Amino acid sequence: MARTFNVVQFGIGPIGQSCLRTILSKADHINLVGVIDIDPEKVGKDVSDILGLESPTGVIVSGDAEAVLSSTKPDVVVHTTSSFLGRMYDQLILCARHGANVVSSTEELSWPYERHPEISVELDRAAKENGVSILGTGVNPGYAMDALALMATGVCNEVRSITINREVDAGLRRLPLQQKVGAGITEAEFAAKKATGMFGHIGLVESVRMVAAGLGWNIDRIEEHLDPVISKKEVVTPFLTVKEGSVAGIHHHAYGYDGDELLLTLDLKMFVGAEDPRDAVLVDGDPPMDLVVRGGIFGDTATVATLINGIPQVFDATPGLKTVKDVPLVRAFGTR
Amino acid sequence: MARTFNVVQFGIGPIGQSCLRTILSKADHINLVGVIDIDPEKVGKDVSDILGLESPTGVIVSGDAEAVLSSTKPDVVVHTTSSFLGRMYDQLILCARHGANVVSSTEELSWPYERHPEISVELDRAAKENGVSILGTGVNPGYAMDALALMATGVCNEVRSITINREVDAGLRRLPLQQKVGAGITEAEFAAKKATGMFGHIGLVESVRMVAAGLGWNIDRIEEHLDPVISKKEVVTPFLTVKEGSVAGIHHHAYGYDGDELLLTLDLKMFVGAEDPRDAVLVDGDPPMDLVVRGGIFGDTATVATLINGIPQVFDATPGLKTVKDVPLVRAFGTR
Repeated sequence: MARTFNVVQFGIGPIGQSCLRTILSKADHINLVGVIDIDPEKVGKDVSDILGLESPTGVIVSGDAEAVLSSTKPDVVVHTTSSFLGRMYDQLILCARHGANVVSSTEELSWPYERHPEISVELDRAAKENGVSILGTGVNPGYAMDALALMATGVCNEVRSITINREVDAGLRRLPLQQKVGAGITEAEFAAKKATGMFGHIGLVESVRMVAAGLGWNIDRIEEHLDPVISKKEVVTPFLTVKEGSVAGIHHHAYGYDGDELLLTLDLKMFVGAEDPRDAVLVDGDPPMDLVVRGGIFGDTATVATLINGIPQVFDATPGLKTVKDVPLVRAFGTR
Repeated sequence: MARTFNVVQFGIGPIGQSCLRTILSKADHINLVGVIDIDPEKVGKDVSDILGLESPTGVIVSGDAEAVLSSTKPDVVVHTTSSFLGRMYDQLILCARHGANVVSSTEELSWPYERHPEISVELDRAAKENGVSILGTGVNPGYAMDALALMATGVCNEVRSITINREVDAGLRRLPLQQKVGAGITEAEFAAKKATGMFGHIGLVESVRMVAAGLGWNIDRIEEHLDPVISKKEVVTPFLTVKEGSVAGIHHHAYGYDGDELLLTLDLKMFVGAEDPRDAVLVDGDPPMDLVVRGGIFGDTATVATLINGIPQVFDATPGLKTVKDVPLVRAFGTR
């Protein structure tokens, strides 16, 4: 029953480094055979130097993806380089050409078919030609606001609509996330950030599309809104202070319609000082389903888990470009 | 995207009849092409007579499974004839030989490998030889106390143990379930029923095995206990009355150990008058997961849903004997 996978880590920013720690902690199940990153500060160093470990691992960070992939021939690449597919899909093609399955944190890859139809076709073809599978996963998108909702409907004969609420206490998360949601900035600063089009959560539309596709539903219009959550009190986190009346975080919400009918409501709040953090799926159906993860899913560690737990999933999947709705239900891997 | 499956219903007891109703309600997605049952009271009748519908469906109940399967060549058979695999696995083989995928409510089929290793091998071989898949599913086993727990661990890097609680208010369920859990009988009657070995919930051990296998965990000992829930008050249901001090239902619990280590706790209470019906999965892990279906999953209708929602699952699966851990995560099918 025990299987061991040869794995390459591609990208060692904060998430990639967390993946490395988890990979090394599961040495009975995963062999780390290579690490790829373009940062000149990291290339040439042993993984232990990057992570601050005492003993060298013998695995040296390389900037030459082609060389790593061809010399190590990994079963699976854990890919954490970008949120955006357009910037780096050639990295995924490269992995496929070397016969490596890929599990990736790229948010746009979680449901690539709408934003990137041509790239989706190309990735699917490359995967099939090389007998591998490519999967984009994560907590959100990839689990909390899509896969979990689909799973909730599995016991329903009828589903009329679904409401998904995710509320995250950003105060418990790492600094980059607190900054990402604008904690502590003014409303004017929030408006300016929003105007760049590069602010807010990435993946809400992807989750809407995935749930709809999983249910075989037509969605012909998606409305997406991004508003600030204004703090009603002063909140102090280990990293920053949010004053009363300033921005505590984001309220990002999306609505999927078929004609005039509202079928899917995805409501995401990530802010400092959230008092009822949770992941909730409410299915208006027969029977109805009222599913809650109390306290919510802790994103920092859970994101890493979805990637590492995706290793056997992509290895076992039939070849092609996959989403989390296509593969067997994700479960923990290598925990004993 | 829309697909239509030709389906035969095999077995039309109470669950099978509910399946028929759901199948007929999803006529855009499912063609009912045949119905098999051995009951002489049902054979020869139009499905509409069985269900009390106004217009004939044109589908006549047949007692000749071979004739129905060979003449209708269904994509999928929805199979609801028995809880026990040993009694009827030849029915599954017959379906496979006719090129039909099978989704079955047979509890023992949800995880057949321990109780019926030879039959499991035979079913897997028959399925593969004929290019079809066979899946045992349902709410419990099949979802509430196994698949949902596995899904909950999907965001965990570490899992130390899992506790699964299902509490069902039998007072809201149909009479056969209230009788099945012994509502209204005395403790002595409960003891006598228990002594037959044919009382209690079927499938708890199957769920323990499936969760363990899904996580790659070794379980070398399973403890199983069946106790009465004694009513602390008089409870009146539409069907019967439970007096204070008499049996309200069952408390069936199972524990999976690796050596001395308790890894899995499955605690099922089904009784009249339950005040906090719910399905809960508590994962002691990193991150921890505290997942609850508030109000619980309503078994009478949900069981039918898992079977009907399993139709595309078994159709799309690679050939062989499958369990719910092997197929893409279940989601509602044919709801619009």
